Amino acid sequence: MAAHQERLEKAGRSMKEAGIDVLLLSTPSNMFYLPGDGRLCAYAMINQDGKVALGVPKTDVEDVRRLAHFDHIAGFDDEVGMIHSIAGHFKHFGISQGTVGLEYTFLTQSMMGMFTHPHAKPETVTVNDCTPIMSALRMVKEGEEIERIRAAARVADAGMRAAVEAVKPGLTESQVAAEAEYAMRQAGAEEFWRTYVSSGPRTSIAHGLPSGRKIEIGDLVMIDIHPIVDNYSADIFRTVCAGRPTAGQQAAYDLYLKAQQATIAKVEAGVGVAELEQTLHGVLREAGHGEHIFGPPIHGVGIEFEEAPLPPGHAFFHGEKAPPPLEANVVIAVGNCGLYLGDFAVRVEDTVVVTEKEPIVLTGYPRRLVQ
Amino acid sequence: MAAHQERLEKAGRSMKEAGIDVLLLSTPSNMFYLPGDGRLCAYAMINQDGKVALGVPKTDVEDVRRLAHFDHIAGFDDEVGMIHSIAGHFKHFGISQGTVGLEYTFLTQSMMGMFTHPHAKPETVTVNDCTPIMSALRMVKEGEEIERIRAAARVADAGMRAAVEAVKPGLTESQVAAEAEYAMRQAGAEEFWRTYVSSGPRTSIAHGLPSGRKIEIGDLVMIDIHPIVDNYSADIFRTVCAGRPTAGQQAAYDLYLKAQQATIAKVEAGVGVAELEQTLHGVLREAGHGEHIFGPPIHGVGIEFEEAPLPPGHAFFHGEKAPPPLEANVVIAVGNCGLYLGDFAVRVEDTVVVTEKEPIVLTGYPRRLVQ
Repeated sequence: MAAHQERLEKAGRSMKEAGIDVLLLSTPSNMFYLPGDGRLCAYAMINQDGKVALGVPKTDVEDVRRLAHFDHIAGFDDEVGMIHSIAGHFKHFGISQGTVGLEYTFLTQSMMGMFTHPHAKPETVTVNDCTPIMSALRMVKEGEEIERIRAAARVADAGMRAAVEAVKPGLTESQVAAEAEYAMRQAGAEEFWRTYVSSGPRTSIAHGLPSGRKIEIGDLVMIDIHPIVDNYSADIFRTVCAGRPTAGQQAAYDLYLKAQQATIAKVEAGVGVAELEQTLHGVLREAGHGEHIFGPPIHGVGIEFEEAPLPPGHAFFHGEKAPPPLEANVVIAVGNCGLYLGDFAVRVEDTVVVTEKEPIVLTGYPRRLVQ
Repeated sequence: MAAHQERLEKAGRSMKEAGIDVLLLSTPSNMFYLPGDGRLCAYAMINQDGKVALGVPKTDVEDVRRLAHFDHIAGFDDEVGMIHSIAGHFKHFGISQGTVGLEYTFLTQSMMGMFTHPHAKPETVTVNDCTPIMSALRMVKEGEEIERIRAAARVADAGMRAAVEAVKPGLTESQVAAEAEYAMRQAGAEEFWRTYVSSGPRTSIAHGLPSGRKIEIGDLVMIDIHPIVDNYSADIFRTVCAGRPTAGQQAAYDLYLKAQQATIAKVEAGVGVAELEQTLHGVLREAGHGEHIFGPPIHGVGIEFEEAPLPPGHAFFHGEKAPPPLEANVVIAVGNCGLYLGDFAVRVEDTVVVTEKEPIVLTGYPRRLVQ
């Protein structure tokens, strides 16, 4: 694929600008983006000339040959073999000084210890974070990437339909999640990120993972799903009522939807993420809900369902750079924050493509509290 | 629950022995084990007296009150609020020097940066890894914990039955995963860890996440599932044939099963993990397959489907301590390595309770290549 060669050359230029001599990637999404294959317990070392040296479990060498773009490959037996193969690749690239870029937002402290072990990294090579480089490379999507995100969005709609149609009193949150996940796999997802389903008072928590709680009549039910189709993700969130909502629930929902739609209407090339954030929060604040908002309302969508661009505060604390103004073909999710009213909460989220003109909303499942 | 109070006191004693003045936990499993509630984007600070200070998103304060044991709580708005609340808790506990224990096997480099930020941690407080303390505490299970793992194992069996019964030519790996996951949620799982399904040549890779590959007649299909029931996990892996296996496939399967069963037969209080590892690998090696083994064959099972004890090599590279001899009421998975023969691979794994006498095998779905 030409795309991978171009991406590798672009990565080389970014590395030169950032003073990074070699990348040592192990996040599956970054490895997929550059050499074309991301898998667990593997790594890709990439130099400024765009040359790639892979390390994979010895079992995986043949499979990787079919999928990845590389110049050199090593199969290892275990973690000791892995660190020795890293040392071998440093030698292969002739790198005994300079700087290696590691993924600070992915590597645990223990994994940092492995990758910087004296048997892996030459002592004279210093370490720096390469997250900003990788995020910048992946930010603006190619046409083929947008088509894959579009396909994922169609699967997200199918999953949401199955989940919403299943919502009824007596069913557990976990059973609602089951319907969404089953439908996503049947519709073509090879995988999905963690599903969130919460109901009734549990809608009030920030990260509503499904539990065994049974839905009751009149409960709001929150559903957040993220299928992976051909290595690309989409993000959709709907709030629905199991029965007839109260006037307060309906009013809160209508307000949130208004805020989300007003924000989507502002999405275009040149706008800042902070401005979108202020638009969504602003509508809620003007209605007197300044104290009832939680969460950053915008994030990028791509190989991962949550990736750069992130709002400046969120980005800073996740080791990312504050994002530049949005360019055409960046894909974002709008509606990542909730409106929390004590007894219940509401939220609506969609996956949106930035263009020079009108935004393209990829997820289309109806936005209605009552089905 | 009395258990949490006892665990907190025990943690306090371990901290004194290890020279750690205060724990700052954010792994959901560790937070569940000690204060009784584990959730995303939250933390628990625990001092040597077993006093607990929690930090959660402001939306979650009421929910946590119902679930956790704590002496002090702070709700925060965002990451900045989170680090300031950590500083507040250091002050609350009167800790301006000494050592804080952080989870090096969980915290990314970016999260380490947040937790050790000058606005969070007093500059004079040093940092050390608390993984060995937490792993040692969680290693031997209480009776109630074993009952929960037993319940998870029943759900694992139900999921495996659904998956195996669905295996047929033309179905994708992802669709087989769908059946397992749907059945696990219907059988009472509130969640599950990542499902692995691989088929045909894809059985040869070390971490066979499901793909859109369609199963063909005569393929081996590998299925690895890990439901979570009442916060506890189980681990089961089966290899089945979509049709009639070749003599070579059957012989490899029979050999692996023999190795796994011989290893399970050796499980009892006092045995070392390395000895079990040698037993399983030994049977395969004696049959001439020394070069065809990949993966450490044993790991612990509990709140997480893969936790301490880990084999010494694996443990070292994951920042864990080499495990002591197994005690009664440790729960392990036996069969975590594969036998890789080029065109296909085989593996069988079960969840087993260590006792003073016979091991108790919790997962019971039939071990048969042909259904």
